[in-house]
Amino acid sequence: MTVTVEEVNALVAAAFPGSGNECVDVGPTWGTARRVVTPDVIRPGGFVSGPTQFGVADAALWYAVFGAIGLEPMAMTSELSIRFLRPATGAALFGRADLHQIGRRNVVGTVRLWMDDRPDRLVAVAQGTYARPSR
Amino acid sequence: MTVTVEEVNALVAAAFPGSGNECVDVGPTWGTARRVVTPDVIRPGGFVSGPTQFGVADAALWYAVFGAIGLEPMAMTSELSIRFLRPATGAALFGRADLHQIGRRNVVGTVRLWMDDRPDRLVAVAQGTYARPSR
Amino acid sequence: MTVTVEEVNALVAAAFPGSGNECVDVGPTWGTARRVVTPDVIRPGGFVSGPTQFGVADAALWYAVFGAIGLEPMAMTSELSIRFLRPATGAALFGRADLHQIGRRNVVGTVRLWMDDRPDRLVAVAQGTYARPSR
Amino acid sequence: MTVTVEEVNALVAAAFPGSGNECVDVGPTWGTARRVVTPDVIRPGGFVSGPTQFGVADAALWYAVFGAIGLEPMAMTSELSIRFLRPATGAALFGRADLHQIGRRNVVGTVRLWMDDRPDRLVAVAQGTYARPSR
Repeated sequence: MTVTVEEVNALVAAAFPGSGNECVDVGPTWGTARRVVTPDVIRPGGFVSGPTQFGVADAALWYAVFGAIGLEPMAMTSELSIRFLRPATGAALFGRADLHQIGRRNVVGTVRLWMDDRPDRLVAVAQGTYARPSR
Repeated sequence: MTVTVEEVNALVAAAFPGSGNECVDVGPTWGTARRVVTPDVIRPGGFVSGPTQFGVADAALWYAVFGAIGLEPMAMTSELSIRFLRPATGAALFGRADLHQIGRRNVVGTVRLWMDDRPDRLVAVAQGTYARPSR
Repeated sequence: MTVTVEEVNALVAAAFPGSGNECVDVGPTWGTARRVVTPDVIRPGGFVSGPTQFGVADAALWYAVFGAIGLEPMAMTSELSIRFLRPATGAALFGRADLHQIGRRNVVGTVRLWMDDRPDRLVAVAQGTYARPSR
Repeated sequence: MTVTVEEVNALVAAAFPGSGNECVDVGPTWGTARRVVTPDVIRPGGFVSGPTQFGVADAALWYAVFGAIGLEPMAMTSELSIRFLRPATGAALFGRADLHQIGRRNVVGTVRLWMDDRPDRLVAVAQGTYARPSR
């Protein structure tokens, strides 16, 4: 038993309406985010901007944390590093996070990002840590 | 001789109108970005979201690259890691990048982020690499 | 056709005798390093030290680069970030790197580290970039 | 009142004799480590190896944590990212860590690394997090 895509999107819509990302998959150790590309996220060269890609990576990791520990909106990114592999062009950006550890204090995962239907052609990869709220 | 704040903002306005950040300082080895906090960048808890902070860090580093090598819009982030230190609340977010190296292929710098008039109380720090366009 | 484990270890023995790590697997997009735990790499608490783990991650990525582009000793780490997940105790430390991109200038990969026969229980994860020599 | 260089080196000698690094400066928000270059840390090309540089960065951050919170050997690196700026050649490698935050759970800092008497010519920079022991 884990959370559903609908539950994640309902929480995000209520708690972070400006997010711009939506959940399209979630499970006990993973989460996938999608961002429809709009003109305001295009940087010089016609590519999806780095902060937009970071936002999708961060969202995917957040959704994966929900899948792992339940709907906890106050889980917060502690640190995240991202590497940009190639110019990102297309209609939608996807990010899938897979968790390596679900600890008492921290959750750590790796994220892969791609455009449209090309998960075999990554545009960026990231790795980072979410801190679980202290009790 | 380096670029001016006005030149940086003119380039950003023309080339990346959706950026949301503005340059408030630039010099041969540094750059400072400001982002006015608007409701759409607030995440659960009432804090400025992580991707927004990443965007300010990335912009500050971009401006510093302009200061170092001139107005080169095609300089692109190669990799960036960010650490979030405390909840970010206030009216405006600032990020200042200082460059450690201005190489032939890469530029590397560290970024400090704070809210309003509290540069002594950092909300995040980042470090990363910009790739210069190949000739 | 790719390089063999024996070819990688011969190169490492000749070019970097103080490495302390050995290659135990290599393929077109991956490499695995092993380090036998010796007393000098134990840090307070009885754990394998962080720099030793970083060294294994770096070696695994180096071997994977050999697998991808051939025996190129001058490929150099450009940047690497590592996250430590739990205390590392045991007789041997393993790191496996998987490449996400093999570009003209850079190679990017993710590394998983574990002790002994427990690849299901990671002690650290890393992600980073190797720069290929300029021609 | 903070710890002294002698106190740091006595703790390191007792608790981590294989470290290879020594403390040459420590204060409430900083620490500096030195490593004498020996043949075993030389990688192909004649440069100080990346893991050796990571070790000096990690040690400098550890010493700075001692300066900030006292002699706590069980403070452990949580994550650290490092960028290599140029080939490192010389007789001794130095790393200086400066802390950005001394929190209840984490300590975050930036590290600069150089060879010999050239702090103006960095060979690497790093940024990372130490976790304080839970009580």
